Amino acid sequence: MLIEIICTGDEVLTGKIVNTNFSHVSQKLEDVGLTVRWGTTVGDDRDTLLDAFRQAGERADAVIVNGGLGPTVDDLSQEIAARAAGVELALSEEWLTTMESYFLRRSRVMSANNKKQAMLPEGAEILDNPIGTACGFAMDIGRARFFFTPGVPRELRRMLEEQIIPRLLARSGTQTAIRLKRFHSYGLGESHVDQLLNGVEDLVPDGSVKLGFRAHYPQIETKLTVRGADDADIEKKLAPVVAEVRQRLGNFIMAEDDDSLEGVILKALSERGGSLSLVESFTSGQIAARLAPLPGAEKIFRRGTLARDIGELWDALRLTIPLEITRDSAEAVAEAARRQSGASHALAVLIDLDEGPDRIDFGGTICLAIATEGAVDSRRSRILGGREWVRLGAVELGLDCLRRHLYGLPVTERIDFERT
Amino acid sequence: MLIEIICTGDEVLTGKIVNTNFSHVSQKLEDVGLTVRWGTTVGDDRDTLLDAFRQAGERADAVIVNGGLGPTVDDLSQEIAARAAGVELALSEEWLTTMESYFLRRSRVMSANNKKQAMLPEGAEILDNPIGTACGFAMDIGRARFFFTPGVPRELRRMLEEQIIPRLLARSGTQTAIRLKRFHSYGLGESHVDQLLNGVEDLVPDGSVKLGFRAHYPQIETKLTVRGADDADIEKKLAPVVAEVRQRLGNFIMAEDDDSLEGVILKALSERGGSLSLVESFTSGQIAARLAPLPGAEKIFRRGTLARDIGELWDALRLTIPLEITRDSAEAVAEAARRQSGASHALAVLIDLDEGPDRIDFGGTICLAIATEGAVDSRRSRILGGREWVRLGAVELGLDCLRRHLYGLPVTERIDFERT
Repeated sequence: MLIEIICTGDEVLTGKIVNTNFSHVSQKLEDVGLTVRWGTTVGDDRDTLLDAFRQAGERADAVIVNGGLGPTVDDLSQEIAARAAGVELALSEEWLTTMESYFLRRSRVMSANNKKQAMLPEGAEILDNPIGTACGFAMDIGRARFFFTPGVPRELRRMLEEQIIPRLLARSGTQTAIRLKRFHSYGLGESHVDQLLNGVEDLVPDGSVKLGFRAHYPQIETKLTVRGADDADIEKKLAPVVAEVRQRLGNFIMAEDDDSLEGVILKALSERGGSLSLVESFTSGQIAARLAPLPGAEKIFRRGTLARDIGELWDALRLTIPLEITRDSAEAVAEAARRQSGASHALAVLIDLDEGPDRIDFGGTICLAIATEGAVDSRRSRILGGREWVRLGAVELGLDCLRRHLYGLPVTERIDFERT
Repeated sequence: MLIEIICTGDEVLTGKIVNTNFSHVSQKLEDVGLTVRWGTTVGDDRDTLLDAFRQAGERADAVIVNGGLGPTVDDLSQEIAARAAGVELALSEEWLTTMESYFLRRSRVMSANNKKQAMLPEGAEILDNPIGTACGFAMDIGRARFFFTPGVPRELRRMLEEQIIPRLLARSGTQTAIRLKRFHSYGLGESHVDQLLNGVEDLVPDGSVKLGFRAHYPQIETKLTVRGADDADIEKKLAPVVAEVRQRLGNFIMAEDDDSLEGVILKALSERGGSLSLVESFTSGQIAARLAPLPGAEKIFRRGTLARDIGELWDALRLTIPLEITRDSAEAVAEAARRQSGASHALAVLIDLDEGPDRIDFGGTICLAIATEGAVDSRRSRILGGREWVRLGAVELGLDCLRRHLYGLPVTERIDFERT
C-alpha cells in the first residue's frame, strides 16, 4: 500500500515549528509494518493545498493530512478537500452536537467560528477526536483514501492510534495482529548493536519479525516488530527472539518498552526503601534533573551538591583530601555525601575537563563512584567529542553505572564511547 | 521566486530522525526575505527521487535538495540529478583533490568509496564544503536551479549561509542588503507581544521592515528583517524600530541577537567579579544545568544545593526556620546559601507543587529569592499547566529574576504566565 503524508500550515512550512508530527506518524506506521513513501509540506494557501491533495490522490492508496482543521480563516483543509473531490461542504449535525457537549462539559461557551469545524465535505466519514474540537474525517480524493487529522500533537497521536491505523491495516489486507517490542541500551554504538544482533530475525523463519534501530545519543533503541495471527501466535514467535536479544546485548540493556533508565533506577531504590544523594561537577545538575523531578522521586531523591571547582566541592562536603580528580577522590566524595545526607546510596560524578576552546576532540576524564553503607564502587572513563558530548555522555554513564550497581551488574564494563 | 525544499533519506522519511534540517533552511530563507512554497520528503529510492526532482523542476525557480551525497550505495543524489537533467556523471578532479587534502590534513587514508563523492553531473557548479567530504553542487533541472546539500546539519548550515543564500538573493533580483535583528523575551505570551508591537513596521513606511515571531516556551523570539541599499541604509531604517521595540517590550527583553539569558547573567556577574550559588527544589538542578556548564562559568558558579524535601534542604543549609515555602523562607535560604558558600549572589527557587496526578491545570507555587551581601529580593508566583510546564516556567522565572536583579530592574513585575 502506497502511503503519503501531507503536512499543512505556514508555521511548519516556514520552519517556525519543527515538524515532529511527520516523524511521529511515520514511525507509528513503521511500527505496525506500514511504510510511508512520500511526504509533502505546504502552507495555508488554497492553490498549493489543492495541488498537493490532487497529486497525492493520483499517486497514493492512502494519504494522511495533518493540520488545517481549526476554527480560523487560515484553516482550509475541509474546504480544499471538498474542492479536490468535487463535492460541497455541509454542516455535520453530529459533530456540532459533539462540540456543543465538549464546551458544556468545560463550562465554556462555544464561539460562532467553531461552527466552521463542523463543516465537512459531503459523504466524509467522521474520525472521532475525544480531546479537541477539530473533527477528523476520511474521504476519497482521486484513487486514494484521505485521512484528515488535527495539528495539535496529542489530538493527532490519539486519532492516529485509535482511528486511522486500524483502518489502514484493514485496507492493507493484513488482517494480522502486530506488536512492537523495544529495548533501550547505552554503551554500544548503533553499528555495534546491529552487528551483535545479526541474524536474530531469522530465529523466526517466516519473516514475520523485523529488526530496527533508533539512535538518540547516548541511547540506542532496538525495535522488534512482530506480525502474527493473534496475540498467542505473536507471543510464541517473539519469545525466542526476545531471549536472544537480551542474551546478546546483556548488561547493556537498561530498560525495555515504556521503561526508562531513570525509571528503572527509581524502581530499584524504591523497592528496597532506599534513597539517593548526588554530587556533580561539570554536569552541574543535569544528572539530578533527569531523576529528581519525576513522580515518586520526592521520596527517594535526598540531596544534590554541585560545584564546578573541586575545592569548592570538597568545602561543601567538608573534605580535606588532595585536590585532584581520581577514583579515590570520587569514592571519598560519594562516601561523604552519603554519610552527611543519611541516604542509602550516593553517586558522585567528577569530570576533569580538557583545556581550551570547544572542538571535536575536546574531552573529559570522568571519575565516578557509588557509595552505600560500608561499600563503594567506582570507575574511570575518558570521553571525547566536544563539551556537550562529554556532558551528555557523563550524565548517561553516571546514571547507567548507578543502575548497574543497583542490579548487581559490573560497573566497570567497557563501553564503545570511551577512550583509554 | 518560487523555492522548494526536497529532503531525502530513509531515516527522515521513516521518522527515525526528526527533520530539523527542513525547518532550519526554511527559517534561514525567511530571515533573508525568501519564502519556501513547497516541501517534499522522499526516501533513498531511485524512482521516487527522480519523480521528486522532475516535479520540483517543473514547478519551482529554485530547489534545495538535502541529503544523499555520502559515500555509500544508498546515497543517490548525484546519480538521480544527472538522470533528471539528462546528463552523465563525471569525475570532478577538483573535488577529488579537495577530498585528498582533507584526509591528508587529518592523517587519515581516503577509502575507495569516497571517490563516489567526487562523481558529479556534467556541468554542475561546485558548492564548497570546507568541513566535510560531501560535495555540494548546483545545476539546472527543468526550469529550476537545484542546490544539492549534505545531510550533516553543520555542513548543510555552513553551505546554506556561505554558498546558497548569496546565490538565491542574486537570482531573486533583490540586490539589496538584508539584516536580521532579534530580541529574546520572557514573560509575555506571543499574542501579547504581537499586540504590543502592533504598527512598529510602519515606522519605516517603504515596507522594508518585516516583523515576525518564534515561540519556544517559555521564551519568545521577536525578529525584524530589514532590507536596504547597503549597511548604512539598513542602520538608518533599523534604529527607530529597534528603539521602539525596546521601549514597548521594556524589561521583558532578556537578550538580543546571539546573546542568551544565561549568557547575560554570566556577563553581569563576571563584570563585577561576582559569583553565584543556587538552591533548587522541584527544578532539581535544571537551573544550574543552564548556567554552570557554560565556558567561563567555572569562575562564577560557586555551589548548588538541591533537595525535593524542604526539611532536607533546611538541613543541608543548617537552617532551623519553620518548614514552609514562603517568600520569607526563600529569603532565609538564599541568605544562608550565599553566606555559607561566600558567593556574591545566591538564588533560591522553592516550589510548592500541587498534589495528585499530572493534568492540564496541575500547578505550582514558586517562591524565589536573590540574596546579596546585606540585601535580599524575592517574589511569589503561581504557574499552571502540568508538571513539566511548571518546571520549565520556574527555571525561566528564576533565571529571569536573577537577570532583573543584576540589571537593576523590578523583580516582581507581573508576567502573563502566572495566576494569582
